[in-house]
Amino acid sequence: MATSGTLRAVHVDELPTPAAIIDADAFEANLIAMSAVHPGARLRPHVKAHKSTAIAARQAGAGHRTFTVATPREALGLAAAGLGDDILIANEVVDPRRLAAVAALHADDHPHHANVTLAVDSEATIDAAATAGVAACVIDVNVGLPRCGCDPADAGRFASVARARGLIVRGVMGYEGHLMMVEDRNRQRDDVEAAMTILVGAHADVGGDIVSAGGTGTYDLHDATGITELEAGSYALMDSHYASLGLPFVQALFVVGTIISVHATHAVADVGLKALGMDHGNPTMIGGDVWYLSDEHITFTPAGGAAVGDRIRVIPAHIDPTMAMHEAAWLVRRDEVLERWAIDLRGWD
Amino acid sequence: MATSGTLRAVHVDELPTPAAIIDADAFEANLIAMSAVHPGARLRPHVKAHKSTAIAARQAGAGHRTFTVATPREALGLAAAGLGDDILIANEVVDPRRLAAVAALHADDHPHHANVTLAVDSEATIDAAATAGVAACVIDVNVGLPRCGCDPADAGRFASVARARGLIVRGVMGYEGHLMMVEDRNRQRDDVEAAMTILVGAHADVGGDIVSAGGTGTYDLHDATGITELEAGSYALMDSHYASLGLPFVQALFVVGTIISVHATHAVADVGLKALGMDHGNPTMIGGDVWYLSDEHITFTPAGGAAVGDRIRVIPAHIDPTMAMHEAAWLVRRDEVLERWAIDLRGWD
Repeated sequence: MATSGTLRAVHVDELPTPAAIIDADAFEANLIAMSAVHPGARLRPHVKAHKSTAIAARQAGAGHRTFTVATPREALGLAAAGLGDDILIANEVVDPRRLAAVAALHADDHPHHANVTLAVDSEATIDAAATAGVAACVIDVNVGLPRCGCDPADAGRFASVARARGLIVRGVMGYEGHLMMVEDRNRQRDDVEAAMTILVGAHADVGGDIVSAGGTGTYDLHDATGITELEAGSYALMDSHYASLGLPFVQALFVVGTIISVHATHAVADVGLKALGMDHGNPTMIGGDVWYLSDEHITFTPAGGAAVGDRIRVIPAHIDPTMAMHEAAWLVRRDEVLERWAIDLRGWD
Repeated sequence: MATSGTLRAVHVDELPTPAAIIDADAFEANLIAMSAVHPGARLRPHVKAHKSTAIAARQAGAGHRTFTVATPREALGLAAAGLGDDILIANEVVDPRRLAAVAALHADDHPHHANVTLAVDSEATIDAAATAGVAACVIDVNVGLPRCGCDPADAGRFASVARARGLIVRGVMGYEGHLMMVEDRNRQRDDVEAAMTILVGAHADVGGDIVSAGGTGTYDLHDATGITELEAGSYALMDSHYASLGLPFVQALFVVGTIISVHATHAVADVGLKALGMDHGNPTMIGGDVWYLSDEHITFTPAGGAAVGDRIRVIPAHIDPTMAMHEAAWLVRRDEVLERWAIDLRGWD
């Protein structure tokens, strides 16, 4: 880690714990693997998975300068980092203050000028966007996941409403989130194609250049679905949940802990549930079997010897909320810390 | 909310969402209910549950000026807020830099002078504390929860080792965390008494004035256990997990969301799993049945009508990690926002 005033290399074991670390080789391999299948604007990386402009900049460096985000905060942060060529807020937003902040980015003289497109799925969300002066939208279409997204039969009508309110309608999006974890790949491919038939049908009613869908779990099932771009985020860092699918992306994010207590039956390290997204259940460990987590503890059976002060590595079950719990992640190659990447898009304001 | 330059009252519906809000009446009732049973230094409020010096200051105002914390960060923050009379880090710490920062607080001329006591449970943790110059410790004793804490038979020996290294040994602590959620109260009382017999026995070998134990779930079971102080944190804000026990503390923390999408079968609001601790499972809702959560969404069946823009209230399943996900909580009385309380003890550095 080249900090000012010193050229001394920092060893990963010198990091204060719990520490989110990113394996540089694994991260770069993941970017290359995804870019090979979805080069350039065929991939719209989802920033919610990492919430870091430093990581987004690496994705831009791999050729992807269009981004997906889940919150206005993420859009504003990308814009401030000079990554605002084409940001899609793939979520409905009705907060007038935040919509106004997003709309303001569109002005040519805004210091963080950016092109932001907002998902809408109802007259109310179109009204909120238009009232705030948001320039462009996509129609969010329900392709089977019971969450946001309009009835496909309403998509054309909403596009007309949006255009009548002065919005540019750039196309459609539809997230097949209910199909991400289907383990039978043939069935998954069939289901994805059926879901995308719905989306492409809605697109015929809506118009525009964008048909946006997908995620890491379906990244290779869209050859013939007619989408113009894939939204995927988890591929860059991965987690134990997605690892179960056997995708070509490798684990790049770990949370490092320090053992603080050792007993005949178990050991305890300082990686707790405030340092890990727990909605997908317990994390896994390298060299240990997890018993349970507490706020600041992981209690586990070590595979080999364990001593107070030893370091352990934990693989989060779900990276998105895990990243949101840390102020920074450290880029590490073998045992050397190369960089500190701020997780600077956390929170909502 | 009395912000500078305006006397206009802010309505809770004007808060940007997701918003952590604290019901002022419920919060104050909880402080009164706990103080009635454990007045003054009989309660050592656990700050990990809320991570806010503003809330700790209210607990101090209710007569409790001794605090329990889980991290050096929490101790340093309390000290900086002038709440450093007597802080117990009820956890093992071996990070030399953080231990040195904690030890430095002890100097009379430190601008944030504080008295900090550290839990130790092994020769290695004693060595780390002594090497860093930490002034005082308690011996952490295993009373049945398989986590940190030494074998009770070793407590006296570790006390001697600590004293030989120059540490003041203030007594013992032992957390009966495995007994917090026992639903049969008679069985729970018996089990707590048995666990505390272990702790009091260790105290006889250790000496000192402190026998520290307990939590919200066992707050009323320590009449005859011999402890000198109760460590409890959840009582102030509560969550749906503890609510199942039928304690006299009432729900004071809610996360407010805004409905962004409405369908025939469900609605969606902007409170997701990045705004809620999920290790105890899904939150509950007032006026709705929760289907599932995504990063920024809660999908639910509304009990009555639902419209885009409507507000909903979610009861977290576990407050400790929930508070750690928010930058601030808003104190609310009926519909008026009274104050913004920073959750300023988040993170680890």
